[in-house]
Amino acid sequence: MIQYPNGKKLISSSLRTKASTNFANRGMDFEGAINDSNAYYLSRKIAVIHKKPTPIQVVKVEYPKRSMAKITEAYYRQASTTDYSGVYRGFYIDFEAKETKQKKSFPLKNFHQHQIEHMKAVLEQKGICFVLLYFATDNRCFLLEAVHLISFFNGQISERKSIPLSYIEEFGFQIQPQLKPRLPFLAIIDQLIEGGKAYR
Amino acid sequence: MIQYPNGKKLISSSLRTKASTNFANRGMDFEGAINDSNAYYLSRKIAVIHKKPTPIQVVKVEYPKRSMAKITEAYYRQASTTDYSGVYRGFYIDFEAKETKQKKSFPLKNFHQHQIEHMKAVLEQKGICFVLLYFATDNRCFLLEAVHLISFFNGQISERKSIPLSYIEEFGFQIQPQLKPRLPFLAIIDQLIEGGKAYR
Repeated sequence: MIQYPNGKKLISSSLRTKASTNFANRGMDFEGAINDSNAYYLSRKIAVIHKKPTPIQVVKVEYPKRSMAKITEAYYRQASTTDYSGVYRGFYIDFEAKETKQKKSFPLKNFHQHQIEHMKAVLEQKGICFVLLYFATDNRCFLLEAVHLISFFNGQISERKSIPLSYIEEFGFQIQPQLKPRLPFLAIIDQLIEGGKAYR
Repeated sequence: MIQYPNGKKLISSSLRTKASTNFANRGMDFEGAINDSNAYYLSRKIAVIHKKPTPIQVVKVEYPKRSMAKITEAYYRQASTTDYSGVYRGFYIDFEAKETKQKKSFPLKNFHQHQIEHMKAVLEQKGICFVLLYFATDNRCFLLEAVHLISFFNGQISERKSIPLSYIEEFGFQIQPQLKPRLPFLAIIDQLIEGGKAYR
């Protein structure tokens, strides 16, 4: 139940000053690129998408000063939903972002059963749900609709414990980084909406 | 910047066993009623609405055991968005829930400028945004569309620092608690959607 998500929580965004369009092998920068993109979309009134706070179970709180609480014992909890959600053009947007150092496939162990159930529920409510998959070694980022991930997770496509890169190349959408927004993933959502793949 | 939101974080939902339809003067039960309602809507595949985790700034983490992180210093941060969001019938749902012990008006100090800005941005993206207002003393709960709160906050309706109950009675919707879901607020959203007040 208690896990330390990714060890990256102490790095403030102000430390990531260089908005490079290349974030290979730099770990945090994938998440940074997504957060920067969401900040760009928000500032331009294009979309309202936020990363949810990491769920933390607070056990002990002290009050060294008046009206200021200091948490002295707490633990990370596993998220039961995806990390990102928001609204774009009237559509509910919901996604998870994960990266791997593998080159030929994306391991399913990056996702939890709870998240898969959440994605199914979102699709049933006609939300737009997907994952952003980052192959760090080759510096390639893809948007893959959740329906594919769900099928793989349930073993409907294959018994493999990972999604082959070839499958992601065929059914996903590669995102080319640019200056602003760094990861223009909403351009792909536009394609899905206009193609009638998003229902309301 | 650092605040302790409401001191209620340690009460697990399992401690709230009696799903009473009356939650007057019992503080936590208003939030409990909302969470129970969202759990009901989720389990019946009616909607996917979650309370966002409380944002916490982690300062120090220790590793007393392998693969288990213990947070030993952290602080509550002020939320920049609303507490609840999700998807219902393809619509993005976003709301904040607040209660007061006052009888004749709802104090605006319950809301922060950041939250008001967030509500405006959500409305611009055609999300459905509202507040659930609970008058604890008289045990009455209302749904008020965010547009009203925003107008009051900006001083467009009056210079008052609170929204009069009479205004909320006229422009809001009272929610009658029931057994399941305890607070059937989505019935009011149905009215808004069918009345054409929600745009896509």
